[in-house]
Amino acid sequence: MATLCRPAVAVPDHVITCEETMALARRMHAGHPQLDLVLRLIENTGVRTRYLVRPLDETLSHPGFEARNKVYEAEAKARVPRVVDGALAYAKLAPEDIDLIVYVSCTGFMMPSLTAYLINAMDFRPETRQLPIAQLGCAAGGAAINRAHDFCTAYPGSNVLIVSCEFCSLCYQPEDIGVGSLLSNGLFGDAVSAVVIRGEGGTGMGIERNSSHLVPHTEDWISYAVRETGFHFLLDKRVPGTMRMLAPAVHTLVEHHDWEVTALDFAIVHAGGPRILDDLSHYLGLPDSMFRFSRATLTERGNIASSVVFDALDRMFTEGSATDTARGLVAGFGPGITAELAVGRWRA
Amino acid sequence: MATLCRPAVAVPDHVITCEETMALARRMHAGHPQLDLVLRLIENTGVRTRYLVRPLDETLSHPGFEARNKVYEAEAKARVPRVVDGALAYAKLAPEDIDLIVYVSCTGFMMPSLTAYLINAMDFRPETRQLPIAQLGCAAGGAAINRAHDFCTAYPGSNVLIVSCEFCSLCYQPEDIGVGSLLSNGLFGDAVSAVVIRGEGGTGMGIERNSSHLVPHTEDWISYAVRETGFHFLLDKRVPGTMRMLAPAVHTLVEHHDWEVTALDFAIVHAGGPRILDDLSHYLGLPDSMFRFSRATLTERGNIASSVVFDALDRMFTEGSATDTARGLVAGFGPGITAELAVGRWRA
Repeated sequence: MATLCRPAVAVPDHVITCEETMALARRMHAGHPQLDLVLRLIENTGVRTRYLVRPLDETLSHPGFEARNKVYEAEAKARVPRVVDGALAYAKLAPEDIDLIVYVSCTGFMMPSLTAYLINAMDFRPETRQLPIAQLGCAAGGAAINRAHDFCTAYPGSNVLIVSCEFCSLCYQPEDIGVGSLLSNGLFGDAVSAVVIRGEGGTGMGIERNSSHLVPHTEDWISYAVRETGFHFLLDKRVPGTMRMLAPAVHTLVEHHDWEVTALDFAIVHAGGPRILDDLSHYLGLPDSMFRFSRATLTERGNIASSVVFDALDRMFTEGSATDTARGLVAGFGPGITAELAVGRWRA
Repeated sequence: MATLCRPAVAVPDHVITCEETMALARRMHAGHPQLDLVLRLIENTGVRTRYLVRPLDETLSHPGFEARNKVYEAEAKARVPRVVDGALAYAKLAPEDIDLIVYVSCTGFMMPSLTAYLINAMDFRPETRQLPIAQLGCAAGGAAINRAHDFCTAYPGSNVLIVSCEFCSLCYQPEDIGVGSLLSNGLFGDAVSAVVIRGEGGTGMGIERNSSHLVPHTEDWISYAVRETGFHFLLDKRVPGTMRMLAPAVHTLVEHHDWEVTALDFAIVHAGGPRILDDLSHYLGLPDSMFRFSRATLTERGNIASSVVFDALDRMFTEGSATDTARGLVAGFGPGITAELAVGRWRA
């Protein structure tokens, strides 16, 4: 039984509040024909604070793709080891106990990926398998859990370390002024996180079954345009409505596991925005309170991409309300449009 | 038992010969202080022909990262479906039989990755899991096989499609004139390939055990610098000597499987360059003829990155010499420096 242990999560020091974001949008886009809509959309996200890897003035300037990617690398190397240490401590494991490192990050690009650096710098075994994933965006948190679950199913007793490193502010593109871009500028935040999936033992969510679902012909709803200036995030206005298309995949997975959705005790889901959570509540017939961890992440840190599910799970550990054998769902959503889903029971 | 079936491999139409490469290097780098060394290194690769996705004059011009990445996307969409059809036909499976698509490519970047396009365009099931890997470079062919093997071990009877898409010529950087860059300009070629790992049945190599090995503190020996102009491939002059460090990992895997390296019947290995193959022969105590498939790939197509192992395996199928239960090795090498290794027996 693969157990998703307690994650370690960290955000950088530079804070930006919703009020500051709104004032900034008013000032920078004073003549924008859809400014009122943008402001309303940003306000509706419910995001109160976000954390940035650099001070605001540096965040707003674009020093070039090369310089930004160097910031990404330096900040990743500076910040990731601490959450890795934290995750190992929560799982009561040492680096040599880890058999696979899954590294998910869509906001910078390195080859070799940070897995090689971590193995060298933190004394993981040279035999540790490396699985870097850069192209699953916000769904990558769920995908990492699912591929780790697969690995522990293949090799019972093995342990997987998942690392998520998302510096969304390094993908800010000053010249992108479409409504979707301006909304994104007020939605995304920076964070790093790590978590261990223990093949045996451990406290947390025992992952029992996982699934994936691609919504047909929605490839261009969430995507990157790759340019000289780096990755340009493109968000279609139809995205907030996708839960109607993805809720059936949740039903399918839960029923395949001989459970009922309405009997679930907890949910750890990617909070892309408030509508995602409202609609999940509606289409799954679950009380809004079920999504309180995801909503708190969104409110306090913004959409931190693949780290959302780990931040939400951390909040559930903090609350300490889950009882042994409580039934739960993990769901990541991202480009494709893809959902990565898992169900399992709490192991106290 | 996961069986690595026959791969389908395709190269583009535009050919460049070794003579043309040498003439080009002489003309373009006439005053280069190390031109003689570069020419000798290129000649020593043994590469006779390479295939390019665009005509030579277009290959040599740099239209910008955005334009190049658009070429990558268009060419991938145009070329990959045919090898996927070929791989499915060899495996005697239909798209709906596939449970996971592993997409490996380090020469262009898309989010969502081509997995979403393939699922939509080729009628794979929406539930098909997607695993795009962009950061393992030439080792990704071996890594894809190993992660597919893990998946079939976790879910017996499932089937995995591996797709490799490498347009190395789209990473040509005219301003990079170090010896390593000029050598690379004469070494790498373009190719696409696909292969199915069948969870049950099928003809090919039954994968029985896999492993990974990172050579400590060699992260900067093979790497990308990410710049406004795209990915800049950096190759350290110590790389050709890495087999001395990686051969022990082959011994460890084979002995862990209660086999002996010198009793292996076949080898399908990434041919990064001729020294890799010479040294493997030396350090593993295997006859040079064991690497004839890899050498033929290198000679006829250059280093086609993650596609090398699939092209070499295809040549082994063509030769038709493998007998039932013949023992073999698959090995991918790439940035990290990482080796991805697997052993298994032929299933006729």
